[in-house]
Amino acid sequence: MDYNLESIKLHAKHKGKIQVTPKIEVRSKEDLSMVYSPGVAGPCLEIEKNPEAVYDLTIKGNTVAIVSDGSAVLGLGNIGPLAAIPVMEGKAMLFKRFAGIDAFPICVDSQDADKIIETVKMIAPVFGGVNLEDISAPRSFIIENALQDLGIPVFHDDQHGTAIVVLAALINASKVVKKPIREMRIIVNGAGAAGIAIAKLLKSADHVDEEDVITAKEVIMCDSKGIIHKNREDLNDAKKEMIQYTNPNNEEGSLKDAMHNADVFIGVSVGEILSQVDIRNMAESPIVFALANPTPEIWPGDAYEAGAVVVGTGRSDMPNQINNVLGFPGIFRGALDARAVRITPKMKLAAAFAIADCIEYPFSKMVIPPSLNFDVASKVAAAVKKAAEEDSTAYNKK
Amino acid sequence: MDYNLESIKLHAKHKGKIQVTPKIEVRSKEDLSMVYSPGVAGPCLEIEKNPEAVYDLTIKGNTVAIVSDGSAVLGLGNIGPLAAIPVMEGKAMLFKRFAGIDAFPICVDSQDADKIIETVKMIAPVFGGVNLEDISAPRSFIIENALQDLGIPVFHDDQHGTAIVVLAALINASKVVKKPIREMRIIVNGAGAAGIAIAKLLKSADHVDEEDVITAKEVIMCDSKGIIHKNREDLNDAKKEMIQYTNPNNEEGSLKDAMHNADVFIGVSVGEILSQVDIRNMAESPIVFALANPTPEIWPGDAYEAGAVVVGTGRSDMPNQINNVLGFPGIFRGALDARAVRITPKMKLAAAFAIADCIEYPFSKMVIPPSLNFDVASKVAAAVKKAAEEDSTAYNKK
Repeated sequence: MDYNLESIKLHAKHKGKIQVTPKIEVRSKEDLSMVYSPGVAGPCLEIEKNPEAVYDLTIKGNTVAIVSDGSAVLGLGNIGPLAAIPVMEGKAMLFKRFAGIDAFPICVDSQDADKIIETVKMIAPVFGGVNLEDISAPRSFIIENALQDLGIPVFHDDQHGTAIVVLAALINASKVVKKPIREMRIIVNGAGAAGIAIAKLLKSADHVDEEDVITAKEVIMCDSKGIIHKNREDLNDAKKEMIQYTNPNNEEGSLKDAMHNADVFIGVSVGEILSQVDIRNMAESPIVFALANPTPEIWPGDAYEAGAVVVGTGRSDMPNQINNVLGFPGIFRGALDARAVRITPKMKLAAAFAIADCIEYPFSKMVIPPSLNFDVASKVAAAVKKAAEEDSTAYNKK
Repeated sequence: MDYNLESIKLHAKHKGKIQVTPKIEVRSKEDLSMVYSPGVAGPCLEIEKNPEAVYDLTIKGNTVAIVSDGSAVLGLGNIGPLAAIPVMEGKAMLFKRFAGIDAFPICVDSQDADKIIETVKMIAPVFGGVNLEDISAPRSFIIENALQDLGIPVFHDDQHGTAIVVLAALINASKVVKKPIREMRIIVNGAGAAGIAIAKLLKSADHVDEEDVITAKEVIMCDSKGIIHKNREDLNDAKKEMIQYTNPNNEEGSLKDAMHNADVFIGVSVGEILSQVDIRNMAESPIVFALANPTPEIWPGDAYEAGAVVVGTGRSDMPNQINNVLGFPGIFRGALDARAVRITPKMKLAAAFAIADCIEYPFSKMVIPPSLNFDVASKVAAAVKKAAEEDSTAYNKK
């Protein structure tokens, strides 16, 4: 099936995929008097008196803005805010379907970080959270950082959503290969938004309890030029910052050099850049998450043949699909339910463990739940809410 | 019934009044592949190639932003953007209920005109129109004017919506009293957004065909200091501009002076400022639209007793309710269907005549359709669409 062509037909038939519908019927003058003038003065004045009541009396507490500038949409690149709308509508559908959240696409007509930050601040009153989506690095980092004190959670899903789901898969893969993450050498190939968030999350174990320590022993990050190390002079700020999290022995060399003796390969880069030789150079029982879409860094069949024990991709037609939809609906549900003002590292880790826990007995071809498992979001939500409530940084000013 | 209290309970029960729902089911991997990755790349690339396709493939063509800064909400004044949310949600319900339009509240966290203008420009990609709401004058004029070349209709409903529905009522009232509008002396009391828009619309007959001329002979505008005339030195820019539309003989004096020999009184001011004497001072067969809410400028019973033939108010519990809901849903429906880039004077007049035409035989207590007449919007939409298609200024750059 030509998904693209069929998808165009489907979109044209419905003229988009979401709608804004009343939750209350308006049939009589009395109905109108309650939902609109004059009765609506009641809730308005209540909120004026006590701004926190906005969470009880309006949609705010269940509503998320999906904010994009269309600069890094799926694998399509910088297609701009208009062409990004179908993706953001799709995301809104998933928010509702998986977590009952009302999400609305805000496609910003500028790719200037300051203007995007200002726009998000301006429209914040009606939203309970902001999902930044498909905004290219390094602006995505700048925008997310600048909005962490907005008073509602602001979360760049391409970074943290991906990192959380990758970590969930890795937690279960480590059970399958019987190696703890804290003893692993992990190669992260791709130093964009997702790669950087993955590397950071893999090194954030000081945020969890002793028994759940998941700090990887060694994370080596590569970009298109090879291993990121101290002596490189071509690194942007975001990559420079990664030196403190990665490559403790300051290795130099290519991705292929890095693969020697690696326990895990995580690719968020481009298709078909690994060979079977690279897999054979890895440590015993390799774990390979080849997430480039639609063509993975190495095809699963080739990886298994070369000895990989666990293989995951971004594709829905192969086992172990690492799909953000396992994360963001439950993460926002939990954050909204907790009324957290930001999504903290502890909340992210709680989400990863909750996703992993959805598989009671992980095995090679099932380290992560199927994307359409509708139970995952509620489990993630409960875990994230609990983590928020136990984490003062989810509420206090930073 | 205490509407305010009951309304608070209703709002608390539902946590707001609108939701964002999918128009397409997502049950299977195939569904997901069509509405989201990978199929969604099809519509995205189509729009990138041909930006106009955004109207066929996304929600844009049926979606309106309801933009407010909460500075002039109903009769409640400057209650701010959070407290304004219930009103904007109510408005969104009415858009959907009356015209099938998906409207979403954007409550802006600033009352600076430039920031509001910038925000609307920034969020425009996903919207097919912008309804400015409850923004105080003169900023509302500045904001609306600055956005007329945005490429989608931007319409301040408190101004033009009100003016259109008042004109519709006046068209039918003139039939009841058997006086043409072009021979009328009309007093407009209140020189805020609504009053100014009413006065302008009453003087805009050069935009209509010969047979439909509705230019009032004489419009006298009053503010809290009395008649607006050339010699006053306390007028802001918006009021000064009205000198070219009103008071052709440069009368001076109070509202009560102005009422002598008036055919029509239109009040968009404050309650109980007219007496029966004022009505008796009017010309034969007075028409009184006392729209202050909740207390009209004169109670209908008193006005009738003093000789008024047609009386209208803003209240739902009295005959001839002048309610914006008769206007904005159909006006936007028509503008969206015509894909007009702005709402022109001809489109406004077409809307007024279409609303008036919904009453085949107007009589004293029925010059305007009931607010909950769901047929009005489709008639208004058809008339506005036709007017747009015959008006090049609805499409061209100004």
